[in-house]
Amino acid sequence: MAIKVHGSFVSTATMRVLACLNEKGLDYEFVPVDFAVGEHKKEPFLSLNPFGQVPAFEDGDLKLFESRAINQYIAHTYADKGTPLIYQDPKKIALVCVWAEVEAQRYDPPAAKLTWELGIKQLMGMTADDAIVQEQEAQLAKVLDVYEARLAQSKYLAGDSFTLADLNHLPTLNYLMGTRAQAVFNSRPHVSAWCADILARPVWQKVAAMRNNP
Amino acid sequence: MAIKVHGSFVSTATMRVLACLNEKGLDYEFVPVDFAVGEHKKEPFLSLNPFGQVPAFEDGDLKLFESRAINQYIAHTYADKGTPLIYQDPKKIALVCVWAEVEAQRYDPPAAKLTWELGIKQLMGMTADDAIVQEQEAQLAKVLDVYEARLAQSKYLAGDSFTLADLNHLPTLNYLMGTRAQAVFNSRPHVSAWCADILARPVWQKVAAMRNNP
Repeated sequence: MAIKVHGSFVSTATMRVLACLNEKGLDYEFVPVDFAVGEHKKEPFLSLNPFGQVPAFEDGDLKLFESRAINQYIAHTYADKGTPLIYQDPKKIALVCVWAEVEAQRYDPPAAKLTWELGIKQLMGMTADDAIVQEQEAQLAKVLDVYEARLAQSKYLAGDSFTLADLNHLPTLNYLMGTRAQAVFNSRPHVSAWCADILARPVWQKVAAMRNNP
Repeated sequence: MAIKVHGSFVSTATMRVLACLNEKGLDYEFVPVDFAVGEHKKEPFLSLNPFGQVPAFEDGDLKLFESRAINQYIAHTYADKGTPLIYQDPKKIALVCVWAEVEAQRYDPPAAKLTWELGIKQLMGMTADDAIVQEQEAQLAKVLDVYEARLAQSKYLAGDSFTLADLNHLPTLNYLMGTRAQAVFNSRPHVSAWCADILARPVWQKVAAMRNNP
C-alpha cells in the first residue's frame, strides 16, 4: 500500500520526512496541507495528527506523526532500501539514537527559533527580532562547540557514515545557510565542513528544490 | 560487563534511566555525581557526556548519554528481560516512537519547567514564579487534552501495554503530583487514571523511594 505525506514545503518537519523518503528511494504521494484555510486544525487532518501540526504520515493502514518518529520508522522498516540511515550493530544504532536526541533536544530549540526569525519570517515579509536572534545564536554556539569536538573525531555525528542523526538537521541547516546565523557554523571548521558535505548530497539538493518548484 | 549510571536522584533524566533499568530487572552500579563541586562540568565526566549534564551511562565499553536514547538502547538490547517496554511488531514499535516523541517534544517542555518551579525549587527552599507556573500549566493543559482523547481509546499511550512511551513520563509526573499542577492532570479522568496506574507500579515506587533513601 502507498506511502502518503501530508505537509507543507515551508515546514522543516515535513522536509525532514521527505529527505528520509528520498534517501531511501521510496515512492510516496505528497498531499499539501493548506495552512491559509486552517486545514491542519480541522478534521480529517486532526485524525492523522491530533496536535494539528504537519507532517502526518501514512504507510498503508499505519498512521504516524512527529517527524523524528516517522523517520525512525522509515529507517528501520526500509533498512535494505537506498541509503542505510542506521547501522546494523545495536551499539552503533545506540549512537545514532544519542545524536538524534541531541539534534531534537539541544540543536533544534535554538535552530528552530532562528529558522523562524531569519528564514520563515523573511519569506512572509516580516522583520526578525534582533534580541531573539542574538540570544539564540549564543545558545546555538554552545551546542556547536560540542559538535565541533565530536566532528573532529568522526566524519559524521554517529560515526563514519551519514545517518538519520545527520539527516534530521538538514531542513533547519538549509534555512540558516545564507542568513547571518551561518557565521555560527562557519567559524567552526569541522562543523562547517560537515554542513557543506551533508547539504551537498544530491538527494537533499533535490528535496530542497521542491520548495521552489513543487 | 557491568552497567553504570552516573547521575543524581534529584535529576528527572537520571530517574528515567533508573526506572527503565529496574523495569528490566538489570543489575547496575549507580555512581553519584556531585553537582555542588561541579563534577558534571569537569573531566572525567565530560568524556561521558560532553554537554555536562546527568545522566551518563556505560554498558561495558559502550558510553551513552541523553536519557531517552539510553532507554531506547536498554529496551531494545534487553528486550527479553523483565517488563517488555516495546512491542515486537514494527508498526507497534512505531507507535511507541511516536508517543515517546510526544513526551519529549510536547509534554516535557512545560512539565520540566513546572517540575523546576514547583518541585526542585521547593527542595532548594526557593519560591516558585507564579507567572511561569500559570503559563506552563496552560501549555500543559493543551497537551493533556490530546492525551485525554488518546487514553479514552487505549489504556496506555502506545496501545494496551505499558511501554517506554509511558515510562519516560514518570519522573516529572512524580514531582508534579502533590503540587498545584496536579489539578491539570486530575481534571481529565482518563489522564488521571493513567497517572495513578503508572505511578503505582511497584518498580516505580521502589525507584521513587531511592530519592529519600539512596
